[in-house]
Amino acid sequence: MRDFMIRTDLALEAKERFEGETGWTEALQGVLVETSFLEGTNGSLTKVTILNQEGERALQKPMGIYLTIEAEDLPRPDETYQEQISAELSKQLLTLLPEKDRRSILVVGLGNREVTPDALGPKVVEHLCITRHIRLANLPSFLKKEYDISGIVPGVMAQTGMETYEIVKGIVEETHPSAVLVIDALAARSTKRLNTTIQISDAGIHPGSGVGNHRKALTKETLGVPTISIGVPMVIDAATIAGDTMEHLITALEEANLIQGLSQTMEEFDEEDKRQFILELMDKRLQKMYVTPKDVDASVEQISFTISEAINRAFAV
Amino acid sequence: MRDFMIRTDLALEAKERFEGETGWTEALQGVLVETSFLEGTNGSLTKVTILNQEGERALQKPMGIYLTIEAEDLPRPDETYQEQISAELSKQLLTLLPEKDRRSILVVGLGNREVTPDALGPKVVEHLCITRHIRLANLPSFLKKEYDISGIVPGVMAQTGMETYEIVKGIVEETHPSAVLVIDALAARSTKRLNTTIQISDAGIHPGSGVGNHRKALTKETLGVPTISIGVPMVIDAATIAGDTMEHLITALEEANLIQGLSQTMEEFDEEDKRQFILELMDKRLQKMYVTPKDVDASVEQISFTISEAINRAFAV
Amino acid sequence: MRDFMIRTDLALEAKERFEGETGWTEALQGVLVETSFLEGTNGSLTKVTILNQEGERALQKPMGIYLTIEAEDLPRPDETYQEQISAELSKQLLTLLPEKDRRSILVVGLGNREVTPDALGPKVVEHLCITRHIRLANLPSFLKKEYDISGIVPGVMAQTGMETYEIVKGIVEETHPSAVLVIDALAARSTKRLNTTIQISDAGIHPGSGVGNHRKALTKETLGVPTISIGVPMVIDAATIAGDTMEHLITALEEANLIQGLSQTMEEFDEEDKRQFILELMDKRLQKMYVTPKDVDASVEQISFTISEAINRAFAV
Amino acid sequence: MRDFMIRTDLALEAKERFEGETGWTEALQGVLVETSFLEGTNGSLTKVTILNQEGERALQKPMGIYLTIEAEDLPRPDETYQEQISAELSKQLLTLLPEKDRRSILVVGLGNREVTPDALGPKVVEHLCITRHIRLANLPSFLKKEYDISGIVPGVMAQTGMETYEIVKGIVEETHPSAVLVIDALAARSTKRLNTTIQISDAGIHPGSGVGNHRKALTKETLGVPTISIGVPMVIDAATIAGDTMEHLITALEEANLIQGLSQTMEEFDEEDKRQFILELMDKRLQKMYVTPKDVDASVEQISFTISEAINRAFAV
Repeated sequence: MRDFMIRTDLALEAKERFEGETGWTEALQGVLVETSFLEGTNGSLTKVTILNQEGERALQKPMGIYLTIEAEDLPRPDETYQEQISAELSKQLLTLLPEKDRRSILVVGLGNREVTPDALGPKVVEHLCITRHIRLANLPSFLKKEYDISGIVPGVMAQTGMETYEIVKGIVEETHPSAVLVIDALAARSTKRLNTTIQISDAGIHPGSGVGNHRKALTKETLGVPTISIGVPMVIDAATIAGDTMEHLITALEEANLIQGLSQTMEEFDEEDKRQFILELMDKRLQKMYVTPKDVDASVEQISFTISEAINRAFAV
Repeated sequence: MRDFMIRTDLALEAKERFEGETGWTEALQGVLVETSFLEGTNGSLTKVTILNQEGERALQKPMGIYLTIEAEDLPRPDETYQEQISAELSKQLLTLLPEKDRRSILVVGLGNREVTPDALGPKVVEHLCITRHIRLANLPSFLKKEYDISGIVPGVMAQTGMETYEIVKGIVEETHPSAVLVIDALAARSTKRLNTTIQISDAGIHPGSGVGNHRKALTKETLGVPTISIGVPMVIDAATIAGDTMEHLITALEEANLIQGLSQTMEEFDEEDKRQFILELMDKRLQKMYVTPKDVDASVEQISFTISEAINRAFAV
Repeated sequence: MRDFMIRTDLALEAKERFEGETGWTEALQGVLVETSFLEGTNGSLTKVTILNQEGERALQKPMGIYLTIEAEDLPRPDETYQEQISAELSKQLLTLLPEKDRRSILVVGLGNREVTPDALGPKVVEHLCITRHIRLANLPSFLKKEYDISGIVPGVMAQTGMETYEIVKGIVEETHPSAVLVIDALAARSTKRLNTTIQISDAGIHPGSGVGNHRKALTKETLGVPTISIGVPMVIDAATIAGDTMEHLITALEEANLIQGLSQTMEEFDEEDKRQFILELMDKRLQKMYVTPKDVDASVEQISFTISEAINRAFAV
Repeated sequence: MRDFMIRTDLALEAKERFEGETGWTEALQGVLVETSFLEGTNGSLTKVTILNQEGERALQKPMGIYLTIEAEDLPRPDETYQEQISAELSKQLLTLLPEKDRRSILVVGLGNREVTPDALGPKVVEHLCITRHIRLANLPSFLKKEYDISGIVPGVMAQTGMETYEIVKGIVEETHPSAVLVIDALAARSTKRLNTTIQISDAGIHPGSGVGNHRKALTKETLGVPTISIGVPMVIDAATIAGDTMEHLITALEEANLIQGLSQTMEEFDEEDKRQFILELMDKRLQKMYVTPKDVDASVEQISFTISEAINRAFAV
């Protein structure tokens, strides 16, 4: 049975929806998928490339490269392990950003620092090795690499009254970075992704992502410079939980022969109909809620540190 | 149809489970319920008194008085409104705490200040008008009331390695307050309670409450002085969401004549069986998760302020 | 004896240096001073107007209006009192900003939120009633006034790698506010100003102000829209303390006839020579230090709240 | 010339006052001093042992061992370097705490987390590897060492209304640690000590230390178990700055033959008289102020991390 709803920020999850269905390989024309094992981390790296509009339609994501590091131990406080993840992430960042675009990197930490799972972006910026002002002050001898790092935590709309796009666009126009790195907490489709997956993409960040409200896209097209996103799923929509539960219940009822054919009927619905059906069964208030692990504070701390280290390693130290 | 699971910190919700069932008034022997309208706040005050062991069994809560203020606008940032709620809360606190027990009040802010919905208790203590040290310094003329307020934020077990009980008991033994007020973020059974309900009880705080881990009870029996709890539901267990969704789906399937009698069968199960059934259908990882509104940071800020004001008004200013 | 050094962000203090000297009224040509008593607050309002380049030279401040509210009880946690101050501040803001410039106000909270006295600006923005996004969302009926408020906390150079000017200029260009309000913690010349003085000016903010490093001016000239600054002295430079102490010691030694004429000699030095003399006597490390009261956390909290209320009152509620 | 005032939390500074004076070695009877170079850190370790009441009188500190690590680069964000300091600190902690006292360590983070330089203690506790609750939960196989760590941030009197002593004593009585480690930000006598010195002592913590108000001693005598203090100078009293400046000015005036013999006269005063003299020349408000470097936020972050690592290394990992 296919999912009742698609609501994921991860290209990898979008792709997985199709697997096992009849004709799924055709459905994914315009999409390339390569997976490799990450030595030493017990994790894997998957590269999903959306090549054209066909691929865009299939995965409902814009064209671009989506690199996903999956590592179950990502929130584990083990320094050696975290260094391996940082090193890998650093390497992948550099593959998406050729030498010519590395001169000056503006790191944007999206999200609300007052809401624990949404504080990932702000915390990454806090841990960065900021260097741009050192070159501004004509002290390049203090720098180990010839690149600059600058950083901004724009805040969310309820705090600023401005779209994130407006703030970032203004700063880009004024400070002329050669590339933008956007860090954000994402919403995942399944609990197993929470805190265990990092997605890096050259397609930037698009509306409706994550916990907060960042409505206008931050991409190469809108900002005028290469825009790489780094996202980690920190929450699940409450609606996703409700959809999953229904699916499990229907399967259980069918296996017990209490109902027949419902899951088949459901499959014939299109995504939007299913979404409507679930939303009707759900408490309206749930639609404005998110689900997150009880120990999310420790995960945010650990993962933000690992991402900062990757950026520092790539561009500063 | 009755709920699949009971998992609530609110006596009011425990009581509501029974309403409408055959024989529910008998089921609630040992329980007294009185409700009154709260002038001007568009809210209500319900007093549930659990009189004896029969009442304890029925509601699965210890004997005591449970006062519940319900006010839909609780998180609304309207100063006049918040003052009315503070005044009512202050009045109810004093009804539970006779003059002889007001000499010196130790306020305990339970929860983890690093996790947004669980920061309610710590934030209440931050906003308090602390006065005990002023009397210690022999400067009583600076005090407006003859009571003292002290406060502590003990932290959660993962931060301290100690049971909350151990910390609070130690401090009570050393500083001899005449009463303890414990503030905690609660888990509610339904989304409509979130951020709209304040429960005050003279039964203290019991294991498994709230988001964190506060396992040993904080009560008059364990601490040796009257122990009043003030709790506000800030989260829902993810398992509750799953249970609700199932319930709604079964009802929908029955109404559509796709299945028969399932809800009746379910009702014959006892609570524990139902809980097991839901947990089996649910993703294991969900059991360690909570559901909370996206704007929980603003609600925590507002409500913590209103509770502090109520305590200040009762004992300090 | 005149001061050894001038190092103040307050026009009022700059002016006071001259008083009592021979010919001081001439020295202050180009400067207008009016003082009035603030009913009910036990405070005063002084308006220093720097009319032309002569005034600029005299006070070493740019042309403009400098309104100073002095109120000894500013950090006192008394709600009624704070409301009076808010009302006065609100009124003065509106005198500096004619109706035509009130359409959309961008509030900039300068300073480092991780350093207690420097967190004044960031905390003011936190407490604001942000409204611009409500009009963006086409929900003007939710707004009480026809003005918008937006806010930004740009951070300091060590956190962002960018000049504050670059960030603010970029945001202004993109979001087109009708005026900018800049909030900053200032350095005062004397301890009695700390936490007891609010300066509002239409001259904006200039290099070297406050605790942090905000080097390029934020003014009407640089930003292109009227730029009002609100500043509160939260620290004193350690060098100022050293200078004051010297002055007191020299006076004491002269009164005891242990030395003669030194203070007179000193007076013949120009400001820069005196500054050099003090810096030579001082420990070099002190030059990067600041002096602040031990309870600065409570003052920052209280004063930031009062300033936010004034802005909210003027433009939002 | 000797100092005008003694006001230091460092035994090392207390000792240094005497050096170079006639008969200083006799003055320090009852005091043993040993210094060694710390390989690789470009720092040194000084051990001051106060053997008896003569030593106590001389240094105005209680009997005990005072180990001081001096390392100019302490606030430098260099991981390898910080690890060397952690290792040394860890080693010294174990020399002060024999095997029999290591079973269960309660770490107390003194200070006010809302005031940047005073947040050292709270931040050390935040970074600790807390383990006691793991053994409580009967999961010793998760522990790498057979010791437990617990931690508490008691807050300051203005926040709690209680003496730090009352809180810590209560917790010790209830949780029975085998030793207490108290972490505190100290006041130093000279700017060169700021952020560059760590003092470890088995004499515990005594009244009037640091920025906050921790009046009753935390020592083996008062708490009933070995009590080790770890302190880092993060502030200087404003009065110290004033005293230093005077001293420098008098020396300069004498060298210029503008005055004679004043410094000699001063030396004949006793400490208390000098202190009074300075306080009279100083602005009264300065007495409630402290001096701290502008980048104190970064230093607190770095040094708290290094101390946590030392404790983790000694007792947890």
